Amino acid sequence: MINIAILGFGVVGSGVAEVIKENSKSLSDKLQGQELNVKYILDKRTFPEHELGDRVTTDFDMIVNDPDIVMIVETMGGSHPAYEFTKRAIEAGKNVVTSNKEVVANFGTELLDLARENNVNYLFEASVGGGIPIIRPMWQCLAANEIESVTGILNGTTNFILTKMIDENMDFSEALKIAQSLGYAEANPAADVEGLDTCRKICILASLAFGNTISPDKVHCEGITEITLSDVSAADMLGYSIKLLGRAVKGDKNTYVITAPHLVSYENPMAGVNDVYNAITVCGNAVGDVMFYGRGAGKLPTASAVVADIVDIARECKKAITWTVAEKDPVCDYKEAKVRFFVRTDDKKANDLFPNCVFCTTDEGYAFITEENTESALCEALSKINVLSKIRVL
Amino acid sequence: MINIAILGFGVVGSGVAEVIKENSKSLSDKLQGQELNVKYILDKRTFPEHELGDRVTTDFDMIVNDPDIVMIVETMGGSHPAYEFTKRAIEAGKNVVTSNKEVVANFGTELLDLARENNVNYLFEASVGGGIPIIRPMWQCLAANEIESVTGILNGTTNFILTKMIDENMDFSEALKIAQSLGYAEANPAADVEGLDTCRKICILASLAFGNTISPDKVHCEGITEITLSDVSAADMLGYSIKLLGRAVKGDKNTYVITAPHLVSYENPMAGVNDVYNAITVCGNAVGDVMFYGRGAGKLPTASAVVADIVDIARECKKAITWTVAEKDPVCDYKEAKVRFFVRTDDKKANDLFPNCVFCTTDEGYAFITEENTESALCEALSKINVLSKIRVL
Repeated sequence: MINIAILGFGVVGSGVAEVIKENSKSLSDKLQGQELNVKYILDKRTFPEHELGDRVTTDFDMIVNDPDIVMIVETMGGSHPAYEFTKRAIEAGKNVVTSNKEVVANFGTELLDLARENNVNYLFEASVGGGIPIIRPMWQCLAANEIESVTGILNGTTNFILTKMIDENMDFSEALKIAQSLGYAEANPAADVEGLDTCRKICILASLAFGNTISPDKVHCEGITEITLSDVSAADMLGYSIKLLGRAVKGDKNTYVITAPHLVSYENPMAGVNDVYNAITVCGNAVGDVMFYGRGAGKLPTASAVVADIVDIARECKKAITWTVAEKDPVCDYKEAKVRFFVRTDDKKANDLFPNCVFCTTDEGYAFITEENTESALCEALSKINVLSKIRVL
Repeated sequence: MINIAILGFGVVGSGVAEVIKENSKSLSDKLQGQELNVKYILDKRTFPEHELGDRVTTDFDMIVNDPDIVMIVETMGGSHPAYEFTKRAIEAGKNVVTSNKEVVANFGTELLDLARENNVNYLFEASVGGGIPIIRPMWQCLAANEIESVTGILNGTTNFILTKMIDENMDFSEALKIAQSLGYAEANPAADVEGLDTCRKICILASLAFGNTISPDKVHCEGITEITLSDVSAADMLGYSIKLLGRAVKGDKNTYVITAPHLVSYENPMAGVNDVYNAITVCGNAVGDVMFYGRGAGKLPTASAVVADIVDIARECKKAITWTVAEKDPVCDYKEAKVRFFVRTDDKKANDLFPNCVFCTTDEGYAFITEENTESALCEALSKINVLSKIRVL
């Protein structure tokens, strides 16, 4: 019997217990007859009706001091006390599995180092892309590649809102209300719609892909709150869909990382990723582009990823995922990276100032896509016309 | 230093050598400083110009008897002597990595058992989906799930031909010629266009997903040679694309496995998988649908998957993939499985005989999609009208 403890019995934590129960037979087969047993659940609330209600405790010390516990599942969310509990668990020689992207993005480097020192695992497949396998495939299956870029639609809430705007011509605030009524967006949707959630996730993927810590506070981050229906329809006329992307590209000297809405060509399969679905495209120097697609959130999909990590540890498959702090912060100034902008303008000078671009007419004037240049040079050039909106192009 | 031998120095085998050389620095980092060394290449040909030309031998005994060799990469293709060499390598205590779907589909059960007995690995990520990570994600990342179905566009050649037919209104034989001229299809394209290649791959995936050996010779297999431009345009009118699918669905008692062209709704992301790209959708009971997408063939993508398996073994991560022979063959009679058919007909009786279906007019008559029923019942009903073509609907 493999005894585990679940910290935080919310949506994901209770989903983990459900998957372990529901698939107990096939899980036991995969673990050569051993069974997974949820010995403790740490939560301030009580769950008297739940069949595991008698496992609920508020005493973390009891859990961390119990030698029976080989693995701790952290599904609390938020940085504190999740970070402190994780640290103590690792120091006590427990393996830790988490779905908490905030802790991994902010403290991953330290916790991975600590896990290595203590000869235990710290695994976090569920922290990015919900149930979509992405951490392990990047680390293990694409091990033969030098990874050149990672581009992801990483937040289901914002993708749902953008899909409503694009398919049903609904404006941002109306689409947000529907997302909230369906439980996809929280009452305070800032972390989603302002891009922070996407930013944390692309930082985790970039750290893993390139081997150096990428901190969310070093990454330029824009959300979708300023996208208008005029942007959506002009982008469509030019053959593009608008998606909130987390994007990391390896350069010779440093790394370009950004979170921002982008135009994605209809010819790119990511343009067809709709509703709450997520997709991550990884480009490796041998394999080319590989895309992973599925539900990026939700109780059982996320729990599925957590339990996969549990099974991995129980199979004693040592992973030793690692990334290190670079001597010099690897994130480049995003303004010096080369990009193209989609621009909407009502300024007749635009045609003369951007003579090599194809213009299309919109209800408020014109839209065009710039040639590629550094963001700072393009912004300088665009400062000479009245810009209604500008969005980067993938 | 980790010494390996490559059996067969064709497209994939030479790609493996190229990836090992090109990415030697990052591979060595991932292997804690150890280097991969190609000590032998088994091939009847000589490669005097190649920098590894001096490693080429025709003597398999020398390879299998060399205690330095810990791993053998089988990229010969074909069943024989690849199967015999693999068996001898495993019996000699060597790990074996392969891209050879024919050997895995036909002899996988025996070779996996033999590998377990000899405490070595037999890994085959490259046998399905080229560089797309699929074997390991299914086995490892989706371990928390009971897998309910696997559906794949598994053959790049046929998908290229179908894309040409759909996008450019080119007929089958013309599209095949272009595929041949681009090197996507062989002079004798039978294994691709008649579905055998897809069939082998879906058998490997189904065996892995459901834990029982699924043999290609038990699986109903249709190719794309009879798909016409009339099918393509009528399917389009109804909102579908035509794709050659390998499909395996777990039932209560047995398993439905088929290789055949299917109509795929434009709302399904698999409908947008074009050209030589492959995609595999796995449905797990916790995660829902997860799709993996990328180049399904080609020198470096396939080599990338082979080298990932090499790295995995070198990291001493014991996988012990396994499936067993079921007491009773698990594949059900495909005629008793429930399906829907897309039907083209010039028979005016069709409207009366299928009153609940929506008909659209085509240049030769009508097209419609049947209600769901067993294939045998539908074929019986369709025998009463003159059918121009019928294709299953996903």
